[in-house]
Amino acid sequence: MWSLPPSDSVLHLLSLVALAAQAMTAALAAGRRSMDWMGVCFLGCITALGGGTLRDLMLGHYPLAWVQNPSYLALTGGAAFMTILIARLVHRLNVAFLVLDAIGLVVFTMAGCDVAWQMNQSLPIVIISGMVTGCAGGVLRDILCNDVPLLFRSELYASVSVVTGLFYATAFALQLNDQVWTALTFVLGFSFRLLAIRYKWEMPKFVFSGEDR
Amino acid sequence: MWSLPPSDSVLHLLSLVALAAQAMTAALAAGRRSMDWMGVCFLGCITALGGGTLRDLMLGHYPLAWVQNPSYLALTGGAAFMTILIARLVHRLNVAFLVLDAIGLVVFTMAGCDVAWQMNQSLPIVIISGMVTGCAGGVLRDILCNDVPLLFRSELYASVSVVTGLFYATAFALQLNDQVWTALTFVLGFSFRLLAIRYKWEMPKFVFSGEDR
Amino acid sequence: MWSLPPSDSVLHLLSLVALAAQAMTAALAAGRRSMDWMGVCFLGCITALGGGTLRDLMLGHYPLAWVQNPSYLALTGGAAFMTILIARLVHRLNVAFLVLDAIGLVVFTMAGCDVAWQMNQSLPIVIISGMVTGCAGGVLRDILCNDVPLLFRSELYASVSVVTGLFYATAFALQLNDQVWTALTFVLGFSFRLLAIRYKWEMPKFVFSGEDR
Repeated sequence: MWSLPPSDSVLHLLSLVALAAQAMTAALAAGRRSMDWMGVCFLGCITALGGGTLRDLMLGHYPLAWVQNPSYLALTGGAAFMTILIARLVHRLNVAFLVLDAIGLVVFTMAGCDVAWQMNQSLPIVIISGMVTGCAGGVLRDILCNDVPLLFRSELYASVSVVTGLFYATAFALQLNDQVWTALTFVLGFSFRLLAIRYKWEMPKFVFSGEDR
Repeated sequence: MWSLPPSDSVLHLLSLVALAAQAMTAALAAGRRSMDWMGVCFLGCITALGGGTLRDLMLGHYPLAWVQNPSYLALTGGAAFMTILIARLVHRLNVAFLVLDAIGLVVFTMAGCDVAWQMNQSLPIVIISGMVTGCAGGVLRDILCNDVPLLFRSELYASVSVVTGLFYATAFALQLNDQVWTALTFVLGFSFRLLAIRYKWEMPKFVFSGEDR
Repeated sequence: MWSLPPSDSVLHLLSLVALAAQAMTAALAAGRRSMDWMGVCFLGCITALGGGTLRDLMLGHYPLAWVQNPSYLALTGGAAFMTILIARLVHRLNVAFLVLDAIGLVVFTMAGCDVAWQMNQSLPIVIISGMVTGCAGGVLRDILCNDVPLLFRSELYASVSVVTGLFYATAFALQLNDQVWTALTFVLGFSFRLLAIRYKWEMPKFVFSGEDR
């Protein structure tokens, strides 16, 4: 996805699949709010590409990935549109899409770390950059659907991104072998997310009921 | 509006009128949520100027139009404020404001295309840039009013912007006569939008009721 | 806070306290929506640092304050997290937090004016820059909590920021003595805000009930 070196062809392929998958689940969310076809495509693009866009705005990293390479818009918008035709199928393949989404979470996080790293940012910013890339698209989707962002309330998601980023960036800093470490990080993050879904691991919630002011 | 060459004085005038009109309808939306006078002015500015602002952020096109030319803030904030005094009138002139809004949609779209074009962006980005300029202000308004954006659910609006942008940018690419083409594009987009309102043309909706996850 | 010259050590200290205080009240808002611990920390960071971030994006002022100095993230995220443990106390100290928030409003406004001033922006943009720095974090918090922003509906808040900014920027323009004027502006803005809270000064509201379109 974003600015991965072209050599990482496996990661690149995975990220394209994950982009499409995120756009498709966003399309279902659009359908739950009876958006029109154009709205469905927008929401797909914004959800799949929004995380990387926010990261680039924060870092002043121009041009944005999809501005430089508009085929990302075609991919995500097209995937969202296709979902209109096969909504039942996508819904039934729920589990497959959770897996694809988990791949996206990990791959986008690593790509976000890469971008910040190449800009010589400090370690905390590298990790934040990965997390924003991996997670912020879903927050934008929830805002546009008029929900309290799921990210802040549901199973481990941002936490997976942070752990992945920490692991990945540490290896960078120690200059460990690139390819091996990339593969290891991917496996770690991916398994962590799948386990979190399977066993419904959640962060403790902070429930506070004092009335406002 | 944004960055039109000063020679296009008719378009420039139209765009100022349209900016004021969009701020005024946003002020009514603020009134429906009982915002205070300052909130009304903010919402007017954000709605009228937000599309161009988002476009500039996306393209890294600094300084923003209203930062360079703060009189836009006075125009839109002032128009919103005036609406408090003449709300009933503005509401009764509903149709006139729909027409002014349609003018804004088309003129802002063309101005947005111009900006991207001058930055040598690719054709898809030129069209997206036009669409964001024309449509995103209303999305920001709906987010701040805590609604699901109307853009995604109502009569053809973004579609008008895309068609206008396509038509306009194609002519650019073919280097057709500038002025004639600008006028033609304006008439096309404007008529398309008015017809869409008159005959309630809508995009098909995607209604999906499978429960969430 | 943002980019205050290090010599202004009193203001700097005040701003750190205010950053923490804003993160802590945001954490209570997160708790009212049962967000998880990570969501609480995010909402704290976004609320406390969002105003300065939006300002920097608008002015193209890179790097962002917290990107350059990630300890701000630790401060605000940490303060939000601590709030989970001492929520009852924070809630009971309501009045103290209103005072700290008022300090933040004034100090952040002045810091926002400074940033725009150093970029040679025009007077209106200096004031807007102060206002965005002082107020926009709360708007982001309310959007993420799925509320109509309180800023637009409640006691004088943005108005205090505008008055503070006007006063501060005028003195700048007249090249009055820096330190005296900074102190004066602080006292003025701070008292104004406290009086507004104490006597429930509100902007008149614009209530409009005409149905939509």
